[in-house]
Amino acid sequence: MSSGFFGDVAPIKFEGAESKNPLAYRWYDKDRVILGKRMEDHLRFAVCYWHSLTFAGLDPFGGMTFERPWFQPGDEMAMARLKADVAFELFQILGVPFFTFHDRDIAPEGKSLAESNKNVREIADIFAKKIDETGINLLWGTANLFSNRRFMAGAASNPDPDVFLYAAAQVKNVFDVTRELGGQNYVLWGGREGYETLLNTSLKRELDQLGRFLTMVVDYKHKTGFKGAILIEPKPKEPSSHQYDYDVATVYGFLKAYGLEKEVQVNVEQNHAILAGHSFEHELALAAALGIFGSVDLNRGHYQLGWDTDQFGMNVPELTLAMVEILRAGGFTTGGFNFDAKIRRQSLDPVDLVHGHVGSMDAMARALVAAAAIVEDGEFDAEVAKRYAGWDEPMGKAILAGDMTLEDCAAHVAGSNLDPKPVSGRQEYLESLVNRFC
Amino acid sequence: MSSGFFGDVAPIKFEGAESKNPLAYRWYDKDRVILGKRMEDHLRFAVCYWHSLTFAGLDPFGGMTFERPWFQPGDEMAMARLKADVAFELFQILGVPFFTFHDRDIAPEGKSLAESNKNVREIADIFAKKIDETGINLLWGTANLFSNRRFMAGAASNPDPDVFLYAAAQVKNVFDVTRELGGQNYVLWGGREGYETLLNTSLKRELDQLGRFLTMVVDYKHKTGFKGAILIEPKPKEPSSHQYDYDVATVYGFLKAYGLEKEVQVNVEQNHAILAGHSFEHELALAAALGIFGSVDLNRGHYQLGWDTDQFGMNVPELTLAMVEILRAGGFTTGGFNFDAKIRRQSLDPVDLVHGHVGSMDAMARALVAAAAIVEDGEFDAEVAKRYAGWDEPMGKAILAGDMTLEDCAAHVAGSNLDPKPVSGRQEYLESLVNRFC
Amino acid sequence: MSSGFFGDVAPIKFEGAESKNPLAYRWYDKDRVILGKRMEDHLRFAVCYWHSLTFAGLDPFGGMTFERPWFQPGDEMAMARLKADVAFELFQILGVPFFTFHDRDIAPEGKSLAESNKNVREIADIFAKKIDETGINLLWGTANLFSNRRFMAGAASNPDPDVFLYAAAQVKNVFDVTRELGGQNYVLWGGREGYETLLNTSLKRELDQLGRFLTMVVDYKHKTGFKGAILIEPKPKEPSSHQYDYDVATVYGFLKAYGLEKEVQVNVEQNHAILAGHSFEHELALAAALGIFGSVDLNRGHYQLGWDTDQFGMNVPELTLAMVEILRAGGFTTGGFNFDAKIRRQSLDPVDLVHGHVGSMDAMARALVAAAAIVEDGEFDAEVAKRYAGWDEPMGKAILAGDMTLEDCAAHVAGSNLDPKPVSGRQEYLESLVNRFC
Amino acid sequence: MSSGFFGDVAPIKFEGAESKNPLAYRWYDKDRVILGKRMEDHLRFAVCYWHSLTFAGLDPFGGMTFERPWFQPGDEMAMARLKADVAFELFQILGVPFFTFHDRDIAPEGKSLAESNKNVREIADIFAKKIDETGINLLWGTANLFSNRRFMAGAASNPDPDVFLYAAAQVKNVFDVTRELGGQNYVLWGGREGYETLLNTSLKRELDQLGRFLTMVVDYKHKTGFKGAILIEPKPKEPSSHQYDYDVATVYGFLKAYGLEKEVQVNVEQNHAILAGHSFEHELALAAALGIFGSVDLNRGHYQLGWDTDQFGMNVPELTLAMVEILRAGGFTTGGFNFDAKIRRQSLDPVDLVHGHVGSMDAMARALVAAAAIVEDGEFDAEVAKRYAGWDEPMGKAILAGDMTLEDCAAHVAGSNLDPKPVSGRQEYLESLVNRFC
Repeated sequence: MSSGFFGDVAPIKFEGAESKNPLAYRWYDKDRVILGKRMEDHLRFAVCYWHSLTFAGLDPFGGMTFERPWFQPGDEMAMARLKADVAFELFQILGVPFFTFHDRDIAPEGKSLAESNKNVREIADIFAKKIDETGINLLWGTANLFSNRRFMAGAASNPDPDVFLYAAAQVKNVFDVTRELGGQNYVLWGGREGYETLLNTSLKRELDQLGRFLTMVVDYKHKTGFKGAILIEPKPKEPSSHQYDYDVATVYGFLKAYGLEKEVQVNVEQNHAILAGHSFEHELALAAALGIFGSVDLNRGHYQLGWDTDQFGMNVPELTLAMVEILRAGGFTTGGFNFDAKIRRQSLDPVDLVHGHVGSMDAMARALVAAAAIVEDGEFDAEVAKRYAGWDEPMGKAILAGDMTLEDCAAHVAGSNLDPKPVSGRQEYLESLVNRFC
Repeated sequence: MSSGFFGDVAPIKFEGAESKNPLAYRWYDKDRVILGKRMEDHLRFAVCYWHSLTFAGLDPFGGMTFERPWFQPGDEMAMARLKADVAFELFQILGVPFFTFHDRDIAPEGKSLAESNKNVREIADIFAKKIDETGINLLWGTANLFSNRRFMAGAASNPDPDVFLYAAAQVKNVFDVTRELGGQNYVLWGGREGYETLLNTSLKRELDQLGRFLTMVVDYKHKTGFKGAILIEPKPKEPSSHQYDYDVATVYGFLKAYGLEKEVQVNVEQNHAILAGHSFEHELALAAALGIFGSVDLNRGHYQLGWDTDQFGMNVPELTLAMVEILRAGGFTTGGFNFDAKIRRQSLDPVDLVHGHVGSMDAMARALVAAAAIVEDGEFDAEVAKRYAGWDEPMGKAILAGDMTLEDCAAHVAGSNLDPKPVSGRQEYLESLVNRFC
Repeated sequence: MSSGFFGDVAPIKFEGAESKNPLAYRWYDKDRVILGKRMEDHLRFAVCYWHSLTFAGLDPFGGMTFERPWFQPGDEMAMARLKADVAFELFQILGVPFFTFHDRDIAPEGKSLAESNKNVREIADIFAKKIDETGINLLWGTANLFSNRRFMAGAASNPDPDVFLYAAAQVKNVFDVTRELGGQNYVLWGGREGYETLLNTSLKRELDQLGRFLTMVVDYKHKTGFKGAILIEPKPKEPSSHQYDYDVATVYGFLKAYGLEKEVQVNVEQNHAILAGHSFEHELALAAALGIFGSVDLNRGHYQLGWDTDQFGMNVPELTLAMVEILRAGGFTTGGFNFDAKIRRQSLDPVDLVHGHVGSMDAMARALVAAAAIVEDGEFDAEVAKRYAGWDEPMGKAILAGDMTLEDCAAHVAGSNLDPKPVSGRQEYLESLVNRFC
Repeated sequence: MSSGFFGDVAPIKFEGAESKNPLAYRWYDKDRVILGKRMEDHLRFAVCYWHSLTFAGLDPFGGMTFERPWFQPGDEMAMARLKADVAFELFQILGVPFFTFHDRDIAPEGKSLAESNKNVREIADIFAKKIDETGINLLWGTANLFSNRRFMAGAASNPDPDVFLYAAAQVKNVFDVTRELGGQNYVLWGGREGYETLLNTSLKRELDQLGRFLTMVVDYKHKTGFKGAILIEPKPKEPSSHQYDYDVATVYGFLKAYGLEKEVQVNVEQNHAILAGHSFEHELALAAALGIFGSVDLNRGHYQLGWDTDQFGMNVPELTLAMVEILRAGGFTTGGFNFDAKIRRQSLDPVDLVHGHVGSMDAMARALVAAAAIVEDGEFDAEVAKRYAGWDEPMGKAILAGDMTLEDCAAHVAGSNLDPKPVSGRQEYLESLVNRFC
């Protein structure tokens, strides 16, 4: 029985590019086969619980704007159950294959961790039934280690080891729940794993604590036989002044330092990428190059604003460039596109939640079509191959194989009076070419 | 015999804090002992050749403003010799112990690399004499692998292996010259080791090329018995859209990936730090925590501008926080404070070169006094120690030693009904405390 | 009778620069005469109610961290009275001459505007008594037109005129209260007077609405005989994507457009300045040059963060440059330094509130001493006068008087074969000179 | 007779969206009628001389990369004539109706202003013939008042009135040439009208000087009967630390201050907009709302870089939003889209110049089609109209007419117990709707 929250909004259907129905997909045709794979299997969309069900419209200068039935006072667990019902109604309206959650989104904090964990389990049991009924699966779960004041100075990186212990206990519970629900990944976002001021901080200590924590989680994964991936989500700042998981390159160095680079992958977010001074496609390409690409938090940052706006991605050419990198990386395995995106606080109506997702799913689907065409067409790959062709010649190979010393190079230049001539990078041509596909 | 370039500017002397002579040091008293070491040995100031002698006042919207005698047309090597004379006059006026250079700053590019190298050697011979005469030593040398059009798409990371070879040959020459001049370090700044657009770029290839290049340099260091450090200078962008040596954390990950983290250290620059979204002290503290702190390019970026302004650092409280991190890291060994700072293009007069250095040396000296007082006073260290005290207790040690699993943590929390209470981070108190010292 | 909130913290006293007591002033000696005026009269410090009494430590990723007695559930007006008691205890501990408030900080929102207004009046009556008793006066009052969801799309610039009416009614009440309490200014901060997306916005309509609103407030000022200033506080963004009162220059254009440039002044904030891409001293100097300098919201933004961090200003050289501009503008008349600064959410202890204010008051006092010395010394003014001296010569005067046409200029250049020679801007010298004073 | 510079590149033709020919237009069909006007008349494309003909590939870290025949040493006027030939070959290949220039782009600086002016006139005479022959007209001319070292501290805002005189004389010459060539506008870009440091600057003086200068130009326009518009081009920073023409709002305030708001319009640039913290469409919409919209410098800034990259605009959805604002403003009158865009310094080949323009013209043409469809469809306008409908009701009108005082508003709220309810801003729906059109 429907909660009635979404009124008469029916499940969204694919109607084709000519449709003017804003509650239809114009491009997202989940069974359409692209590069040998169904669109749904390429995109693996997930709706997140926190923004869509838990965000109440607050910002630093104002309070709640969304008046949801489950924000009312009273029996918190009853509210959580109502929220779960509406959540799956949303997932079904959208027809997404996955969802994601933090423990604190789905169930209220109790008076003790035991009680909090019990609340989480109770809702997880409801999820299990709904997963069975709907076929909508869990992409990943994660523990909220940043909202409660006990985590104000970090969780694993907290100066107080008791907070580390508490965080570990909380993670164990969410990990177990995630595994039992068939979750395909487990995510760690280091919300407050960073510092507010160096004046009271020992970087060395905190990095070691973080390395230990992550190692424990990896060990537990192996012990429990969890088949999914462990993912870290880079973010440079906010809420902390500096966050340890700054960007993909920083996370890679951290993983290398603690011997975890084969164990942990990254969950890349567009908005976090631009806050770190990178393009989205850079972070994706780098993760692929370093062998740690895992999953994506799909959203869009506001180029004029310096904080995490988590808007729905709508710019097709930008999404196309990102999708090209994902296709080049081989596409998702356990990962997917999780909508870490929230409707603006002025978007009060339940249908606004639907518009945000439908619009962005459609933009992404269109980007997939364009990206696949780019990959199939092959001109970009050919340009790149041509540009680096010299490295596949004997001298290039010898250099890379370590067969040339600095002196050898110098001798070669002297001997051949080498004077390399630059060739055009053809950037404008290539940028124009992107527009042919999207 | 003096070139007369600086007119009647005499060597700068220490006159004490009450002096109103702008051509005197008010704080930089090189023989004053601070924390058991002479100020000069703490600060190890170096003047750089490129900004002070070679920069002609150009910017992207305008041409030369500095009319130096050595910018005149005619015999380029004669001009280079004149420049060398003036350079050492500047170093002597300032009384700095070190200087630094790029090969192309000191001598003109020839028609071939052989000729260019010969030009460099000829000036290096002059340097050798001047070093003997003045006791002013070489902090480091480096090769300019970014100004000539052959390097427009990178040096080691160029799509053309011929450019890699050429760069290697050029580096070998500067390395040799640096070693022979008694240089204390060799620096690599990856000026165009990055990309302009991902559309024509293979990240994986370019990173591997870079790794190979750096390994060659390290091998050559060992082969030649060079005792100094190899330094990489992180910068996030400019001139490239993205530079591979983005920041300290990125360089660390790169070094780990190629097994070079024990071989190479970082040369941290304030302006590069803020362009990467970090504070100066963050980059220093992180380099120390990761064990790769080497040297500093001292300057100041403009907080309202998005490019490398390379101004002279003048803000004492900011410099103090940086100096505290350096003292905590044990101070410089082979490194030093190199002034990678340039006078504004409106600062036309020779004496402006002197004002910039004197002002910033004095600000840094004052910062050293403050930083040493902070370290000696010990209150900051005590605050930090107290904040992390729990990690020195048995449970904290057990966690860090790897003796606790995720399940152990969960059991401990359940068994003790642990509910950690946050304590104040005291940021405002600590910030106020900084002001007591500077 | 004390609330006991601050424990045994006694009123802060001036102890001199050598004091190591963190709860003493080292520089703020309110009766010390500088440039003929008492320090207190120069600085006119005010403590703000919202950050110091109402901020609970929330941020976009976490909830309350400050557990204040007055945040407890129960009788909201009783809590508001307790808060007022603690507020004046804080003001008295600090020994500040002023405070500031938003209506919603001091009293709870009622079920109707009438009830809200009644709540505000009731607390204002308490303020009136406390003002009498303590001699601590109201620097300014303002209406909170941004926190309640009714203002989510703006107040005066709302697409719904009912919100404009409501906002006007609310402002009238706070204006009346401010006037009756002897407030020296009335401030409007356009919290949500901006837009989130241009897609649903009419800029022209919203600017006209804003112009009308401000005109009404100015008319009411004259009608009621209020002697203070009306102040607008520029801010470029946050919470809106674009705020109409972007910066000083934008506000000036807006005032000119609606004929209000003689009626309204600006309340300049450091953090808002840097979010708009300006230095603090730029905004102050520009306001003075345009004749609209009024007051200051004193705080410090974090140069690495893209949002309003509202930290306590501590950097003496930066504050000195700001103070120089204020002294040059003639100092404050009705305005003052309002601490629109908040302690970090990890600064849990009541004494942290005291440390933030004491540290920043002291830094500002020290900056005043330095700025006054700069002004008295006169070298900066002399440098500037010398640089522009030509404009005080006959030709310069003729140009500015409008006596020269474009053709006259061309004729003059042709006739004299004019070829102006650039002279040094002496920036490094001047920057060094600042350090002599602070 | 062709210079041969572009080899066998033939004039670009429209071939339709399905064409895979990179040297064809897929969308730019100049005679296609959109909203009752030919595409060419909507877009009024102009190619700029400086980036396309004069830029040699320099950046702050490297020298010339473009080896053009006209960059060779020798007879500078002969080189300028060759450049003019190639320029018109480029214009004709592209089939653009307009071009633009700075005086120093087209002819070498002479030993005196008289000689420089003579050089400019000589090339202008060539232009006159080419305009006659090709039908390609001058969109605007402007004087380069920033490259020569005499302008290092500004032109009109220079501390030396001789520089003001010189600048005025130079502007007169370019103005005359522009008028005589049938130029449709005259542009002033305040390249160095700003400051490097406030320490040596009098804002008030410099603003007054600028106001005087602009008034002279306006007076001269009227005197000479020039029918075109005078345009100011806002830019916030670079090369100066702060530029007086910061953004549209700042320029508006400046024009109001000197009574020039009916005389002068703005030339809005995308890259300058984002450097000022605005979106491109914001600056356009604001210029229209303030009645000062004139023309556009079309390019694209790099969102991850903090300087003026002047890339070719390629992102169709972004260009569409800009074009919607231009259509709403009534389209161009004397203005047009000037490509203030440059090929990257690695784009060495002559054909790269063609690719950049063709790609961006096509993207803009496609954006025009989308924007026109948005305007014709009317749904956006209807949404906006509905949102503000209350302001067209009697109370809304009364407020705007000045018939309501603050007391009236308060009485109305009290009398009606008004409690406005927020309605959804529908941002996600509207963003999705944009994608339906492009």
